[in-house]
Amino acid sequence: MFLAVEKYGGTSVGSVERINAVADRIATARQRGESLVVVVSAMAGETNRLLDLATKVDPDALAREMDVLVSTGEQVTIALLSMALHKRGIDARSYTGGQVRILTDSIHGKARIRDIDAARVRTDLELNRVVVVAGFQGVDDDGNITTLGRGGSDTTAVAMAAALEADECRIFTDVDGVYTADPRIVPEARRLDQITVEEMLELASQGAKVLQTRSVEFAGKYHVPLRVLSSFEDGPGTLITHEASDMEQPLISGIAYNRDEAKVTIRGVPDQPGAASRIFGPISKAHLNIDMIIQNVAQDGTTDVTFTVNRDEYPEAMSLLNKTAKELNARDVVGDDTLAKIAIVGVGMRSHSGVAAMMFETLAAEGINIELISTSEIKISVGVNDKYLELAVRALHKAFGLDGEGTEEQLAEAKDS
Amino acid sequence: MFLAVEKYGGTSVGSVERINAVADRIATARQRGESLVVVVSAMAGETNRLLDLATKVDPDALAREMDVLVSTGEQVTIALLSMALHKRGIDARSYTGGQVRILTDSIHGKARIRDIDAARVRTDLELNRVVVVAGFQGVDDDGNITTLGRGGSDTTAVAMAAALEADECRIFTDVDGVYTADPRIVPEARRLDQITVEEMLELASQGAKVLQTRSVEFAGKYHVPLRVLSSFEDGPGTLITHEASDMEQPLISGIAYNRDEAKVTIRGVPDQPGAASRIFGPISKAHLNIDMIIQNVAQDGTTDVTFTVNRDEYPEAMSLLNKTAKELNARDVVGDDTLAKIAIVGVGMRSHSGVAAMMFETLAAEGINIELISTSEIKISVGVNDKYLELAVRALHKAFGLDGEGTEEQLAEAKDS
Repeated sequence: MFLAVEKYGGTSVGSVERINAVADRIATARQRGESLVVVVSAMAGETNRLLDLATKVDPDALAREMDVLVSTGEQVTIALLSMALHKRGIDARSYTGGQVRILTDSIHGKARIRDIDAARVRTDLELNRVVVVAGFQGVDDDGNITTLGRGGSDTTAVAMAAALEADECRIFTDVDGVYTADPRIVPEARRLDQITVEEMLELASQGAKVLQTRSVEFAGKYHVPLRVLSSFEDGPGTLITHEASDMEQPLISGIAYNRDEAKVTIRGVPDQPGAASRIFGPISKAHLNIDMIIQNVAQDGTTDVTFTVNRDEYPEAMSLLNKTAKELNARDVVGDDTLAKIAIVGVGMRSHSGVAAMMFETLAAEGINIELISTSEIKISVGVNDKYLELAVRALHKAFGLDGEGTEEQLAEAKDS
Repeated sequence: MFLAVEKYGGTSVGSVERINAVADRIATARQRGESLVVVVSAMAGETNRLLDLATKVDPDALAREMDVLVSTGEQVTIALLSMALHKRGIDARSYTGGQVRILTDSIHGKARIRDIDAARVRTDLELNRVVVVAGFQGVDDDGNITTLGRGGSDTTAVAMAAALEADECRIFTDVDGVYTADPRIVPEARRLDQITVEEMLELASQGAKVLQTRSVEFAGKYHVPLRVLSSFEDGPGTLITHEASDMEQPLISGIAYNRDEAKVTIRGVPDQPGAASRIFGPISKAHLNIDMIIQNVAQDGTTDVTFTVNRDEYPEAMSLLNKTAKELNARDVVGDDTLAKIAIVGVGMRSHSGVAAMMFETLAAEGINIELISTSEIKISVGVNDKYLELAVRALHKAFGLDGEGTEEQLAEAKDS
């Protein structure tokens, strides 16, 4: 029997009406003869309501108790969806993360899944039941409730699919697939029929908010066939593949951006072994998410190190870095919290070295100054002042032929170089 | 170390402000050197909000999923209270019923506690932590979430106190103790310093809504010292004792009433074996709660059977009984849904037979007709038309000296007889 794991996010289950719509969709899949595990998020708004309560009690609330609190959000949804399925004559059974059981480490609020004991779920599937699982949550070895962090329901779905060796994992969301760029910024953006895991990873980590990065990593690692599709309209969505198809790849698959960035630079760091670890040790201990790290070659025995952080972690990063600067006898620390990151992603660029040059030329032609550059094998990221974000994304979308009309000449040029 | 289990109901934790007030109260108890386990209900209004959601999805929602849903209410409270304690520098740790673990049977919505594995809680207490436990919930053998039914948090508290052999179980509520009668009806009603478990049971089942009956039974069975007190003001509350003190007992301890009653009479039932079971079989199958049952001696080979039900179950009781009447060839069925029940309760009446007579005289003097009478060893209940309820309660309160001034003559008379 075809086994699908389906995941519905907060907007898709945001009201009783929408929960009923999800139940209808599941009923249809059952009529197709599919066996189903359904992973759901908290109803839209519910997590924020709970966070507000916690903030009122203690703005620095303990992470363990935050997890106890916010995990109730998904628990409400699994109960309501199971009720809606029962009403449609479908035998369904709800499970919290702890009940499944989804075993995680003990990093509250950002836990990672270690293991899934799917025996109970398998028994239910054999009894022809739909299994409804609370996303985003698990338990640690001591039975404490943990959460995987925001967006973690995607990870739950992929991990369940891997544990059950499901035939497909479908992530239902409020968009109908992965686009060449954010359609709110680029009206010409097109839905991709498929994309590789690597490309998806680069896009997701750059702020293409369709899928949580970790869930894509999981899908890649365990070879889970992953499909992103809309819970509001029918359509094939985008399939995330594990290998590029034999056909020639497009030069780039998509453009991602992230507006809420900041950059921090520690200047005049004495160039000696261990400096980097003394800079990033405290940052890591504080669990700040750093992304791009740039260190230029040393001049006069000192070097400058720049890295980017989420904008809301900027003040903490600055304060940590100022302390480190004193300890290292570095000259000073400067920062800027008006940074936006833009990345072009594509497995096609592996074999075409002209892509970077074309990206820089396109931005230069628009008068956009590039503040940071960082590259990987299938991605080129740049940091620009956030006021240029929309302009930059639109210009790049056009330059790389993603509009569909194509600027043949430019493309040919890039491919040839 | 003195170990207290404290329970705070929905009103006491109904807002962030009130949760902070509870945390302050716990901080004070800690300063007295007490070791504490705190059992909490869902914030006032939360359970109804969840029930409304369920009703929208399916008015006949599965009991298993209802429990998954409503148990989130207490889970929110334990997290918030633990946060509030941490903010006060108190090491606290929250547990759901399943985490404790409170093992119940599998009757969803009305589960009974079978066993409590308090090892984890004991370890926390040894580490000088305050343990915060979700009331009203547990898990069955298969790990399914169960709830004890409304008001079940009291039971959780008493059961935890029994399992931990606590020195005292304190039920904090919105009244400052058990009263001789409902102060809304009798302004002269007085708070009782103590009352026996038996008296409390009779009062609770008659509608003195201070404590859930099952929790008092539990306290009696496991000899848990139980105290009812207000979470809004300081005061000693009422201690529920396991044996009457050596001092002479008051004649009666309190007066309870229940306004929402109805009576149903099946008349002219052929007086033959099996008649009662054929009358009450269908009633029991329909899960109607019957209370008083009165059957007079037979006359002319037939008898009349009367019983009382909650007013909202009156139509169903009438319809069931009409069917039974036909099957039994009974004459007819009559009913009245304007009944109120009033009971006087006191272990003192065991040795004083004049109490019933005094009750009847008092009501007669006010011109109140008694429609039904039922007695137990420590209680006398009567049914009267509900329009007389306030008058009857006030007259009895005065007659039995509960006003505090005492009508010495009457009391002496009753005790002598």
